[in-house]
Amino acid sequence: METLIKISGVTSAAINAGIKNAQNSSVNLNPKDAEKLDLSIVYLAEKSVTAAVFTQNLFCAAPVLVAKNHLNSDVRALVINSGNANAGTGVASGKKGLDNAYQVCEMVAKSLGIDSEQVLPFSTGVIGQPLPMQCFKNNIATLARQLKNDNLPQVAQAILTTDLVEKTASSQFKVGAKTITISGIAKGSGMIRPDMATMLSFIFTDAKATQTELQECLTKAVNQSFNRITVDGDTSTNDACSLSATGASNVSIGHCLDEFQQALNAVTKSLAHQIIKDGEGATKFVEICVKGGSSKEDCLEVAYTVAHSPLVKTALFASDANWGRILAAVGRSNIASLKVEEVNIYLGKVCIVKRGELSELYTEALGSAEMAKSEIVITIEIGKNETLERVWTTDLSYDYVKINAEYRT
Amino acid sequence: METLIKISGVTSAAINAGIKNAQNSSVNLNPKDAEKLDLSIVYLAEKSVTAAVFTQNLFCAAPVLVAKNHLNSDVRALVINSGNANAGTGVASGKKGLDNAYQVCEMVAKSLGIDSEQVLPFSTGVIGQPLPMQCFKNNIATLARQLKNDNLPQVAQAILTTDLVEKTASSQFKVGAKTITISGIAKGSGMIRPDMATMLSFIFTDAKATQTELQECLTKAVNQSFNRITVDGDTSTNDACSLSATGASNVSIGHCLDEFQQALNAVTKSLAHQIIKDGEGATKFVEICVKGGSSKEDCLEVAYTVAHSPLVKTALFASDANWGRILAAVGRSNIASLKVEEVNIYLGKVCIVKRGELSELYTEALGSAEMAKSEIVITIEIGKNETLERVWTTDLSYDYVKINAEYRT
Repeated sequence: METLIKISGVTSAAINAGIKNAQNSSVNLNPKDAEKLDLSIVYLAEKSVTAAVFTQNLFCAAPVLVAKNHLNSDVRALVINSGNANAGTGVASGKKGLDNAYQVCEMVAKSLGIDSEQVLPFSTGVIGQPLPMQCFKNNIATLARQLKNDNLPQVAQAILTTDLVEKTASSQFKVGAKTITISGIAKGSGMIRPDMATMLSFIFTDAKATQTELQECLTKAVNQSFNRITVDGDTSTNDACSLSATGASNVSIGHCLDEFQQALNAVTKSLAHQIIKDGEGATKFVEICVKGGSSKEDCLEVAYTVAHSPLVKTALFASDANWGRILAAVGRSNIASLKVEEVNIYLGKVCIVKRGELSELYTEALGSAEMAKSEIVITIEIGKNETLERVWTTDLSYDYVKINAEYRT
Repeated sequence: METLIKISGVTSAAINAGIKNAQNSSVNLNPKDAEKLDLSIVYLAEKSVTAAVFTQNLFCAAPVLVAKNHLNSDVRALVINSGNANAGTGVASGKKGLDNAYQVCEMVAKSLGIDSEQVLPFSTGVIGQPLPMQCFKNNIATLARQLKNDNLPQVAQAILTTDLVEKTASSQFKVGAKTITISGIAKGSGMIRPDMATMLSFIFTDAKATQTELQECLTKAVNQSFNRITVDGDTSTNDACSLSATGASNVSIGHCLDEFQQALNAVTKSLAHQIIKDGEGATKFVEICVKGGSSKEDCLEVAYTVAHSPLVKTALFASDANWGRILAAVGRSNIASLKVEEVNIYLGKVCIVKRGELSELYTEALGSAEMAKSEIVITIEIGKNETLERVWTTDLSYDYVKINAEYRT
């Protein structure tokens, strides 16, 4: 968690609306959840611009459909609830899930004096249960009266479900005498926690930008951060990340595009790493770096094959320098160009595989010392090209199974 | 385990050669392994024909390279050792791994009076250790003297590593007054057990066939059996399956191709299911059946995405009818044609998702009753086409992590 720097033009508020407490009794929530913040509004100054990216899962939840639909309006507010994902509740016209998402937007719009289309809704929590609408009716007007510029840390709390800690990050840079600030919050345990595992992130800046500029910057940043973390390869029905620019600094990002992209990348990368580190059951933070493939896609294919291999992940949990498992995962990657004799594998700085075979300098002691660390870098060279791609993941522990097998039951 | 019917023209022998006992002390093998059979020879009558399929993993082990190389000769013998995979030991010309594999073939050839090229070597066990050649030198001549027609059950034992039970299957059919028999043995815990997880299978028949016919039949059978079982998506460097036809029945499979294929399919499917059921850590046997996709490939993509989802697998372990996890896995399958409103999902005969949404007839009680069973069928309809593909898998249990984290350390 990093200190969140306030963004001029962004006010917000969070409340305990009783949503986490309102669930069907077949779902055993932690009793402490009943006391937690679970509903927030973020209000954006006039002329703010918002971009967003959403889950690629075909079965996206009702709020995702509504947010996509409203993104082309002048977005002025985000409404975010935790405790209920409004997913699997119907996304067809006239179905309860979609109706409820639209109704939440209407309530927020009414209390803020804006149009319903200017509100983006986000939900995270258990799936298959209707949104407890009374919780929204009872609290949205109150929230609208409590909006303040320094409430973002409370929103960072209110969007959490089973996360252990808030995830926050800020970055600043100067353009002449003026300072541009980017601040972001996130939630998610990287699909370690199934029904509540949605990854949500909300990022704000006082830069001035067109939606096209923002969308491009956000897509680039997400591709290098949230899209590069993986715990188990599963994706949620509710994943979303938004970026809102209030323009309060009066500096257009067109004048500082590289610096803005760099600062935004730093924020999303920090948030993504915080998500991985908060994964319950995770005992290791692992970077897999693949170099030299004939394309970016080839490097990523190898990186994800290794990152998703349960055999590699259990070896990481056991701090076992089991290079055979890494080699076997590289070998089954679905790429055309791989040549055994061009593959080198390093654990930290220790070379374990040289030209496709066990390095002659390698010893178990060297490998074990690297694997005992809590942060591990596995570097895999698959050729001589100038490509380099990184993904981040965790180990596979007893607690992963425990959490995912016992949750809900 | 099924009764193994003897195949005329096939003799074999197995011995405790001390290979499992000869490993580097850094590898903690079960002390009982020292007493187990670990080296076998199968000798095939003159004019026998052999076909084989091998691992697709780019990093295949030395014996796999040698077996591929010798497959085009008139194969007369298989030599199989457990306890050491001769993998990661060097596959280039002049390297120890490759040299040792060739030397084993030479020893067998000499003791049987055949050419070295007529021997296929297979190895399974720990990787990264040189083959203990003295164990082979001391025992191969003895084995050659002990060859008998009714020793195949001992070979089924001798090829095991961490498997709990032998895997055997036989099938017979009549052509006129004559009977054709197919008998097969297998080992493997479906990559549940990492370094020793190689899947090996050896199948024998008294039918008469050309190598082309045999290879076609074997490829078809393997595609519908061994290639459809998955525990964790990992594949081994040593996987292999051979089919030898002695011709002793004097019935050509050209005259009974459909019956032969059907009987062979039954043998490989039975062996594949026995492998899944023997996976340590596996508490469920799960069939995933996907219907109606616009191609076979689409059906398989959906089936494997569900089968490999750790969230689905932990839910199966917990007997939790978590339909949201299945739906989310279907939704992230990488196929172009999927339409939400065409997706139906069944647990056994209970419909859980109808046209992409929770079925109105579904109750938690109905779902839980299905999930409590030890054999579970998940049927997923993704369209109206005539396609249907099945894969088989297991749940993801504490023991999976325990076995894979603790093994070797």
